[in-house]
Amino acid sequence: MQPPKPDQLNRQIRLHARPQGFPDPSLWEVTDEEIPDLKDGEVLVQVTHISIDPAIRIWIDDKPAALPPVGLGEVIRALALGRVMRSRAERWTPGQLVSGLLGVQEWCVVDGGSLTPVDSTLAPAEVWLGALGIPGMTAYFGLLDVAQIAQGDTVVISGAAGGVGSIAGQIARRKGCRVIGIAGGPEKCAWLKGELGFDEAIDYKNEDVDEKLGRLTGDHGIDVYLDNVGGALLDTALKHLALGARVVISGSISQYNAEQPTQGPANYLNLQLRRASMMGVTSFDWVDRFEEAISEMSGWLRSGDLVSRQDVVSTTIDAFGELFSRIFRGENVGKLILQLIPTEE
Amino acid sequence: MQPPKPDQLNRQIRLHARPQGFPDPSLWEVTDEEIPDLKDGEVLVQVTHISIDPAIRIWIDDKPAALPPVGLGEVIRALALGRVMRSRAERWTPGQLVSGLLGVQEWCVVDGGSLTPVDSTLAPAEVWLGALGIPGMTAYFGLLDVAQIAQGDTVVISGAAGGVGSIAGQIARRKGCRVIGIAGGPEKCAWLKGELGFDEAIDYKNEDVDEKLGRLTGDHGIDVYLDNVGGALLDTALKHLALGARVVISGSISQYNAEQPTQGPANYLNLQLRRASMMGVTSFDWVDRFEEAISEMSGWLRSGDLVSRQDVVSTTIDAFGELFSRIFRGENVGKLILQLIPTEE
Repeated sequence: MQPPKPDQLNRQIRLHARPQGFPDPSLWEVTDEEIPDLKDGEVLVQVTHISIDPAIRIWIDDKPAALPPVGLGEVIRALALGRVMRSRAERWTPGQLVSGLLGVQEWCVVDGGSLTPVDSTLAPAEVWLGALGIPGMTAYFGLLDVAQIAQGDTVVISGAAGGVGSIAGQIARRKGCRVIGIAGGPEKCAWLKGELGFDEAIDYKNEDVDEKLGRLTGDHGIDVYLDNVGGALLDTALKHLALGARVVISGSISQYNAEQPTQGPANYLNLQLRRASMMGVTSFDWVDRFEEAISEMSGWLRSGDLVSRQDVVSTTIDAFGELFSRIFRGENVGKLILQLIPTEE
Repeated sequence: MQPPKPDQLNRQIRLHARPQGFPDPSLWEVTDEEIPDLKDGEVLVQVTHISIDPAIRIWIDDKPAALPPVGLGEVIRALALGRVMRSRAERWTPGQLVSGLLGVQEWCVVDGGSLTPVDSTLAPAEVWLGALGIPGMTAYFGLLDVAQIAQGDTVVISGAAGGVGSIAGQIARRKGCRVIGIAGGPEKCAWLKGELGFDEAIDYKNEDVDEKLGRLTGDHGIDVYLDNVGGALLDTALKHLALGARVVISGSISQYNAEQPTQGPANYLNLQLRRASMMGVTSFDWVDRFEEAISEMSGWLRSGDLVSRQDVVSTTIDAFGELFSRIFRGENVGKLILQLIPTEE
């Protein structure tokens, strides 16, 4: 990689309109801007990998959320990896790999304090958006600390072939749990059971989830449900809770594009009946312990006990909108990443 | 009280039909039966007070619940107080006051092991269906153990003028919390603030709960929400959660008669956003610690720090159906109790 040429333009994707339901091309605006000079404390990063996250759908809505909404005309917020190209911040020198909320753009001028180092000797760069990134942290702390999984627990995971779900199932297996994944399509289900070692998989597109979940979990029921999907699937899982079950909300991808109000889980009263609890997991709450999780999970990666699968699409930034809509059609397997090919000048 | 005469009949209310929505008179059948002789271990109890509980509505539905459904033709299950009249069980002697699931009937032949003694020197009999009974236990353990209320917490209680809510608010006040009650009508609200010492009350029939809850809890929000109502009110409360809030489901009276599927809380995703949890409280889980709670609460009753209000209606058992429908119209203040006047022979 080379520092930018003097006339280098930065191609960006900006928010052109607020979404109504399913995201369409009218939401995005492509702009080309000059790269500004650095101020003290700032760093210029060339963006290499953009994480295509469901969370972006939340951020572009004008609703209260963990982070303020992206404003109309602003660069789309996204977690990304990149390489430091210029630095006026003490900690950073050109050539270092970093991650941060770099946005959907080719170049990013950012405060050095907001960046995290990426150690590519520990794992390849992409893995830092997968098992060692936010999806991995969400899975790790969601299961080990929020749900407090224990050996012998029956753990059910929706969105099991996605970024969080695929890591979560493997963590639960390593901790001696029985793991049932819910995913769409026979290919994903075969992958869960084959490569990832899930005990069971339910294909929600072709199987009766309620019936199969009931059959697989029997009289005992579900000890831990990690939910990435929400909607009808959450309601179905709530029907099958074991006594003392823990329901952990990691996401609700089925609801992000809903034009109707969010579908609430009608079976929430089973929380009372089954002495269960429902909580959320938010990876940012565990930042102080990321190092511990990364150390343990990179060990599993090296021993082959953990597979981090990234669905990496290498193309130009113009493809962002199309890739983004793909995650809501459930077409990705593992964490979807846009690996940037610099646009032609 | 006298032991039954040789030809004494036992008047009972039995389940004639399963309810469709709001309970109506067609559900109940009045029967008169002879009182059977006692077998070894059994006790004959003359029922004096029947607790008119929302839970009965759950028990007469043919749906999975904590206890099996009442069968068609069976005596309606109900918590009640009574006096031992005959005993073939070691522990019990005629004259003792007891409580148990005696059912909606004038006389009950029951296994001695299923009864609990009632100490009327500690508190009047009715209070054992109120502050020292299931409503009090639900409030006590729901707030102190499930929600783990702490001094300074903002505690919001729905159904605040009901059996559980009215006790819960006073417990929270004693523990140094700021207490906001939600109830229907200005009279109930005045009672909450006047006699019970709630800090604030919201009249859901005449005030905008969302707006007032927002105004009263401000940027901080609700630390603990004890829900007796469910439905739209639960959803509104979920909008105003503080970081780390605890939502405790004690009941959902708004939903028990619903002919539509239960209304799930669309704002459940705020559990994740606000790092909150939602759990149920079921008094039966805390039976081993009832003594501790009764000891503490009877102390508060004696010092005047706790008011147990029972809405006692003294009439014959035939009035059960009418009284039962009253709780769903929100017409009771405090725990509704049917005090039995023996029917004329």
